[in-house]
Amino acid sequence: MTTVRAATRELLRSRGATTVFGNPGSTELPFLQDFPEDFRYVLGLQEAVVVGMADGHAQATGRTALVNLHSAPGVGNAMGAIVTAAANRTPMVVTAGQQVRAMMTLEAPLTSVDATLLPRPAVKWAYEPPRPQDVPAALARAFHIAESAPRGPVFLSLPMDDFDVELDAAEARAARHAAARRVGGAAQADRAEVEALARKLMTAVDPVLVTGGAVDAEGAWDAVVALAERRGLPVWASSAEGRVGFPETHPLYQGVLPPAIGPLAQTLAGHDLVLVAGAPVFRYHPCVPGPLLPEGTELTLLTSDPGEAARAPVGDALVAGLRPTLELLCELVDKRVDDEAAHRAGDAPVEIPEADGEPMSASIALAAIAGAAPADTVWVHESPSTVQAFRDHVRVDRPGSFLTATGGGRGFGPAAAYRVPVTFVVPASREYAALRSFGRFANAPDVPGLDLCALARGYGVPAHRATDPAHLAELVGAATAGQDGPVLIEAPVTGVPPVL
Amino acid sequence: MTTVRAATRELLRSRGATTVFGNPGSTELPFLQDFPEDFRYVLGLQEAVVVGMADGHAQATGRTALVNLHSAPGVGNAMGAIVTAAANRTPMVVTAGQQVRAMMTLEAPLTSVDATLLPRPAVKWAYEPPRPQDVPAALARAFHIAESAPRGPVFLSLPMDDFDVELDAAEARAARHAAARRVGGAAQADRAEVEALARKLMTAVDPVLVTGGAVDAEGAWDAVVALAERRGLPVWASSAEGRVGFPETHPLYQGVLPPAIGPLAQTLAGHDLVLVAGAPVFRYHPCVPGPLLPEGTELTLLTSDPGEAARAPVGDALVAGLRPTLELLCELVDKRVDDEAAHRAGDAPVEIPEADGEPMSASIALAAIAGAAPADTVWVHESPSTVQAFRDHVRVDRPGSFLTATGGGRGFGPAAAYRVPVTFVVPASREYAALRSFGRFANAPDVPGLDLCALARGYGVPAHRATDPAHLAELVGAATAGQDGPVLIEAPVTGVPPVL
Amino acid sequence: MTTVRAATRELLRSRGATTVFGNPGSTELPFLQDFPEDFRYVLGLQEAVVVGMADGHAQATGRTALVNLHSAPGVGNAMGAIVTAAANRTPMVVTAGQQVRAMMTLEAPLTSVDATLLPRPAVKWAYEPPRPQDVPAALARAFHIAESAPRGPVFLSLPMDDFDVELDAAEARAARHAAARRVGGAAQADRAEVEALARKLMTAVDPVLVTGGAVDAEGAWDAVVALAERRGLPVWASSAEGRVGFPETHPLYQGVLPPAIGPLAQTLAGHDLVLVAGAPVFRYHPCVPGPLLPEGTELTLLTSDPGEAARAPVGDALVAGLRPTLELLCELVDKRVDDEAAHRAGDAPVEIPEADGEPMSASIALAAIAGAAPADTVWVHESPSTVQAFRDHVRVDRPGSFLTATGGGRGFGPAAAYRVPVTFVVPASREYAALRSFGRFANAPDVPGLDLCALARGYGVPAHRATDPAHLAELVGAATAGQDGPVLIEAPVTGVPPVL
Amino acid sequence: MTTVRAATRELLRSRGATTVFGNPGSTELPFLQDFPEDFRYVLGLQEAVVVGMADGHAQATGRTALVNLHSAPGVGNAMGAIVTAAANRTPMVVTAGQQVRAMMTLEAPLTSVDATLLPRPAVKWAYEPPRPQDVPAALARAFHIAESAPRGPVFLSLPMDDFDVELDAAEARAARHAAARRVGGAAQADRAEVEALARKLMTAVDPVLVTGGAVDAEGAWDAVVALAERRGLPVWASSAEGRVGFPETHPLYQGVLPPAIGPLAQTLAGHDLVLVAGAPVFRYHPCVPGPLLPEGTELTLLTSDPGEAARAPVGDALVAGLRPTLELLCELVDKRVDDEAAHRAGDAPVEIPEADGEPMSASIALAAIAGAAPADTVWVHESPSTVQAFRDHVRVDRPGSFLTATGGGRGFGPAAAYRVPVTFVVPASREYAALRSFGRFANAPDVPGLDLCALARGYGVPAHRATDPAHLAELVGAATAGQDGPVLIEAPVTGVPPVL
Repeated sequence: MTTVRAATRELLRSRGATTVFGNPGSTELPFLQDFPEDFRYVLGLQEAVVVGMADGHAQATGRTALVNLHSAPGVGNAMGAIVTAAANRTPMVVTAGQQVRAMMTLEAPLTSVDATLLPRPAVKWAYEPPRPQDVPAALARAFHIAESAPRGPVFLSLPMDDFDVELDAAEARAARHAAARRVGGAAQADRAEVEALARKLMTAVDPVLVTGGAVDAEGAWDAVVALAERRGLPVWASSAEGRVGFPETHPLYQGVLPPAIGPLAQTLAGHDLVLVAGAPVFRYHPCVPGPLLPEGTELTLLTSDPGEAARAPVGDALVAGLRPTLELLCELVDKRVDDEAAHRAGDAPVEIPEADGEPMSASIALAAIAGAAPADTVWVHESPSTVQAFRDHVRVDRPGSFLTATGGGRGFGPAAAYRVPVTFVVPASREYAALRSFGRFANAPDVPGLDLCALARGYGVPAHRATDPAHLAELVGAATAGQDGPVLIEAPVTGVPPVL
Repeated sequence: MTTVRAATRELLRSRGATTVFGNPGSTELPFLQDFPEDFRYVLGLQEAVVVGMADGHAQATGRTALVNLHSAPGVGNAMGAIVTAAANRTPMVVTAGQQVRAMMTLEAPLTSVDATLLPRPAVKWAYEPPRPQDVPAALARAFHIAESAPRGPVFLSLPMDDFDVELDAAEARAARHAAARRVGGAAQADRAEVEALARKLMTAVDPVLVTGGAVDAEGAWDAVVALAERRGLPVWASSAEGRVGFPETHPLYQGVLPPAIGPLAQTLAGHDLVLVAGAPVFRYHPCVPGPLLPEGTELTLLTSDPGEAARAPVGDALVAGLRPTLELLCELVDKRVDDEAAHRAGDAPVEIPEADGEPMSASIALAAIAGAAPADTVWVHESPSTVQAFRDHVRVDRPGSFLTATGGGRGFGPAAAYRVPVTFVVPASREYAALRSFGRFANAPDVPGLDLCALARGYGVPAHRATDPAHLAELVGAATAGQDGPVLIEAPVTGVPPVL
Repeated sequence: MTTVRAATRELLRSRGATTVFGNPGSTELPFLQDFPEDFRYVLGLQEAVVVGMADGHAQATGRTALVNLHSAPGVGNAMGAIVTAAANRTPMVVTAGQQVRAMMTLEAPLTSVDATLLPRPAVKWAYEPPRPQDVPAALARAFHIAESAPRGPVFLSLPMDDFDVELDAAEARAARHAAARRVGGAAQADRAEVEALARKLMTAVDPVLVTGGAVDAEGAWDAVVALAERRGLPVWASSAEGRVGFPETHPLYQGVLPPAIGPLAQTLAGHDLVLVAGAPVFRYHPCVPGPLLPEGTELTLLTSDPGEAARAPVGDALVAGLRPTLELLCELVDKRVDDEAAHRAGDAPVEIPEADGEPMSASIALAAIAGAAPADTVWVHESPSTVQAFRDHVRVDRPGSFLTATGGGRGFGPAAAYRVPVTFVVPASREYAALRSFGRFANAPDVPGLDLCALARGYGVPAHRATDPAHLAELVGAATAGQDGPVLIEAPVTGVPPVL
Repeated sequence: MTTVRAATRELLRSRGATTVFGNPGSTELPFLQDFPEDFRYVLGLQEAVVVGMADGHAQATGRTALVNLHSAPGVGNAMGAIVTAAANRTPMVVTAGQQVRAMMTLEAPLTSVDATLLPRPAVKWAYEPPRPQDVPAALARAFHIAESAPRGPVFLSLPMDDFDVELDAAEARAARHAAARRVGGAAQADRAEVEALARKLMTAVDPVLVTGGAVDAEGAWDAVVALAERRGLPVWASSAEGRVGFPETHPLYQGVLPPAIGPLAQTLAGHDLVLVAGAPVFRYHPCVPGPLLPEGTELTLLTSDPGEAARAPVGDALVAGLRPTLELLCELVDKRVDDEAAHRAGDAPVEIPEADGEPMSASIALAAIAGAAPADTVWVHESPSTVQAFRDHVRVDRPGSFLTATGGGRGFGPAAAYRVPVTFVVPASREYAALRSFGRFANAPDVPGLDLCALARGYGVPAHRATDPAHLAELVGAATAGQDGPVLIEAPVTGVPPVL
């Protein structure tokens, strides 16, 4: 006989989901009982951290992350990070334990009341199986939903007495069927529509390309570079994206679009056609009124997310997988100019700068870090007030080498620290920049004086405080050379203007 | 200056949505004020009827239907029909009036409290714009969401004082951008995946095809017929579908799959590959345990609905538009046999049968109807207890010529009667078949004796009661010849076993 | 052994809920199997009618109504009436069948997906028991929630295979415990607060009382009359209430408050204290700006509904049961004047009026009806456009003798017709008054010409059309004398202005 | 002219809500602009901490707490603590900033999509005003809903551009009306019902009283002591409560009821009547089957929470305010015995124990803490694995002197540290007790080695590690004498069995 527990594990193995990120309590223990050798449980002490780790893991590996939380309080604590995972379009299956079925109607302690309502609207699907035997099928379905475009978190509430239940032969066979299922990859936009778009691209006088993080997430980096080079398209990056969709060292690369209506339209002025690949149209944060597009400019959006296609306030859209569609589009576009500039080599290596004050500015700190970091660095950025300085000094030039959280929440980066070789560099201005704006008013809240190095050491993480750019570069260099665990470097900087 | 009302109407014109189905009250009057000549308002006296008409209109025309309801009670009355429209995958924008903004926090009468929660989970999106100026953009987005796969109803709550608000120049321009947007059609599955599927189809010893209503809804009827004929595939119809996906008079057509686990697997026994196009895998109603598939049988599902792909309990899936994907698949499959049988002519014309009792049986009644109906009849079927008799005598052989509601609700058919040439034939057993099952128990509810012809005439619809098959055929013939409005024919039949 | 079915029925008996209002399908049959002799099933052919009947039954008897619907489409069709029951504060337990548990995760046909979300926000609680054994406890809890202040509908989704499951001894005993529970009645406001209010009432120069439908629903009619008489308080009725809270023939009765901000404040001008009992503060429909209260006027609200207390835009509130609190208040208020007028006899009998045109006006028709109706008539009013004429001619003077629906929906009245002696009088203006307002515009929808008498007869209800006031009075008199079933009387009237 | 900002602040002043707990971002800055001198902003760096502080503040002061969070990620991060506040029945108004209205339909970054769905089901009400002018009225209503029984959190989403909008004269006056409103206190159960209960209490042979945390929260501590003493009732405490409802040093005090069905019934065996005051009936966590009550035992529940009354699986219930109802009950119960024992003095002072090992046991540590703590200590307990040891050594004997979180989440206690004199004692077993249960299995997660003292110092909190009981007592004594800020004491203990 097979139990629900055994069938569930088979299913997780078949999905490659043997790493579980969690913070369990009593209601999750039955799921963990006899935890198999080939599984790994990555423990976080607060749920925001757990989901942050899972999010980073899913984005780095491209595989759906499995999360294990403790009834209602656990899901509650994780909700901010789940909202962020939804904004990041991260495939994630979030499970939470539930009281034993016999105690739920009584609302005994640890009953998650209305469990499937709790995680909405941040999840694509929320379900509590009506019988123990349905757990494997529900889990299989959860993975497939999480992985369909637009990818995102889903939720299952699992009563703790379900795992010991035995499956009969038909149920066991159905669970094996569920484990064996595969749902096919990204579709290509209808050929006629791509042909029409190719014609537009060829006849446009001055077309321009805008790329977003989905290009990286969907493995379309090479396709978009090929298209830009073939047609000689200048390329802008969409703002506030969680990933980078085009090499920032490429000669066709123009920079990041401003995130405000008027300035953005001004930036695109002169182009008669804007092709947007895998980015929202558009992400504005400050509300600066103005025209959405320059007069006479046409826009087409390629996206695999029907919601983004519907939400765009301007321009047409094609909903399809980015990689196959961009490959077809590239094939259909004639090579017009052999633009040598498009293949120019990247920038010269960055040098370590001199200090510009005491403490140094954030810009100098970022320059020092960029100069000292290894060529194969994967950047995780979570300091909104230094985003401009970061962009000035760090040029992302490989797929998958930059991640940030897009939903407005923080804490995604630090979560990535489970004995992995991460170097945390904290540009510490000793101000809470988001609060500075009202600091001049009476009764502004006191900003606590944190000793970041002490806190890091409290968690067992080696920590250092940089005194100047050269010291900072030296610390970065040392930390990243032969690193076998996390290191924190505090870089005292002057205050910087807040962004979000 | 442009008002919200004027911008809204421009937007509706651009979407081809100038027909409004509704049952308005005071909160909807501002939307209707100065109703333009080129718009049409189709009024129903109960909201279930209103949405039923809209559903039928959308399915018949392929265009998104626009519905206009009265605050919370109107949406409430319509909810059963909206649930049915969701099951039917019908693109539909449902709007409801809301109190004036200044009275909503007071919950003055006709305030729809929690308006965007009310229609869930039957709608894909529910929204109440945060400002009057956002109505046009919200409406544009509603259409695009309703039309993305899987299509379905969406909901907007519109405060009644929003329509008189004036737009400034930027807002008016944004409304025009919204009206001009187009979102591109169905994508084709990735070529590599289709090639793999084509190889499977060629190497399978005895493959079989299962078709569903989405084939008809997505205009893939010709593609599926071509594929079946090219490869000589026997074709089964999925059960409980709202449309027909393959000509039932075609020599390759095998019939309707049984809607129960065991019998369905038995029906497919012997086939090593099942290709399902545009149908759920599978629709079971009676719970008959058994294997989901015969031992050794593989299954692949083609669907444009990622939810269906995730939900299927067995087999692989490709998520893509049916028409382009089936066309590519057909192209890639070698013509194996020139199966003459596959092009055999249809069945001989049906003859009017003799009566088999007093009253006649439902089977005989259906035979009479089938014999008398014109060749270009569009069938709308809503009598679950006669579904077998219907299938025995009526063979659907053209795209778009059969509709029924799939969600388990009734009333979709009769709703189609707004001065249109519909002949309603009611096989009246003078029993409520769904209730017969408990009729032998004490205290069974009394079934009211309805005089269907009197009711029809009360609504101004000519009505006749058929005495025998010949009379029934004669009435059907007369009603369908040169018809300029609805006619009801009551066909008294013996009791028949209920299905749902 | 006891089954879930048997335990459920014991529980229903203990709650006095042996009358089931429903429109069942296959998913409800297991609940109905072996339907006991002491239960009664009241069948309606559309769910709005089913819930309307249940609502009227609950309001007339004061007992919680039990409703039985068919999965998602049944609940959907009923939602408008459930919204109305919520507005009426009607205690009601709505149940719906659900697929067998083994088929729910597959979303087999008739699965109600997200069943507990569907009826929100119209229900106070929505639940699907996690095991069959929990059905009795869930049902007990549903009754108690429906009956707690503010009363209203609750919802249970019941999988169809739950009823045959057997309970073990402990479960059976728990079900008996659940059946035996009683939750105590209305609480009295804290004595100190009532004393303070009594002092205010005694010292106010010109206090006034406003009564609402909750006075009738909570059995506080006598208490409110006693208070008004003891202090000689003029009494206004709150507008748009579903019941009447004070005898309209009483000399202290002033009429119905206008439902608009400005006019209402004007009506209360001159009073320094307004005591509102069991009515919302206030119900406005047309949005007429103005002060909420006259300058210098104080207001206190007595209500058993904490939501109403929170929602009121002005004045203080006491949340407690109306009857005990008003009785204590009356006890604490000194009898100030022996106002003979307060005990004056009611109005003289109404005479049958002459016709005032062809057809007669709605006002004359109402006068004729009022004159001919028996003294013990229970009035159910659902014709918003004649509400003023109704108020002018019909004076409600006994508890429980007037009902209407408050939520803005219609159809509550006609639903009361299950072989009960109801006389339906329809003031038929051959216009859809709510639509007249836009009738002068192009493209106004055609209003169908209904033959009401033919429709009534189609349902087996005798029907008559009145030619003039005398004929109308004669028909009303005949219908209400020794009536043993419903009768419909169509009273053609001239068009009247719409209200809602 | 008055702005929304000014009117909002007037309203908050009138509610005594000038302390704001928050973690703001850009969307909250407009609310904070020109922050007034008489307001205080208490800043937390993570939202769980913010809401924990607010929860503790509300419970300690009895006043509704005001919370200010950052759009969707802020609400998400706070959700676990909001779930806990709901379980604690803590009155709390949670506000979150929202994008400017003009950017919401675009879903610009920091738009909280479906903002009112996000915090459900943990809040009693969730609202986003339809216009800026409605903010004051919505806020007033939010306070009243949060404070009605059962008290709990409510939620408001406030677009950031609402605060600068100006109110016209009528709107400003309506805002003043809203600020002036008061909703009256707890009601007393109907006298006839209380009389019946008094008779039962007098005629019962061996009645018993069970008290819960609501006794403390509703100020009914004295009333319940008086009732117990008057009738000589033995008193049990309900398990898993957030507050203590009866002095644990009182001679009638029996201890804490076991939280499992069978053992609880056994504990109550022999009593013919159980009166439960302000506690759930009952809180079970381990699922131990058995009878809910001993055979022949009756039960009555007094509660102000209609939901608790409905949810109880056994016994009758009266829904009313605890204090007035218990006072009346006490009045109606004859003094039967002058039980001297009932007035016996409390326990002798606790002595500091000897160490029982290295490290000491949790029991010895608790004894040391209890011995050294001042008499007026307010205990906040959050260590489920030491709950028994805590109960053995710490006897709560004054109202409001014990708090813990009831919902299963942790972190409520540490949040109380905003420069307040709190001594944190952490019984540190260097094991994650909840995880020990699966520690013996392969692949158990590594428990990180935290240096608690280093972490505390990182936040600027003095910290000490106790070496033995005497040292621990000395540290506790020193910390609590003349304390002017938080102190952390780590008390290494041996592992203890987990509870939740």
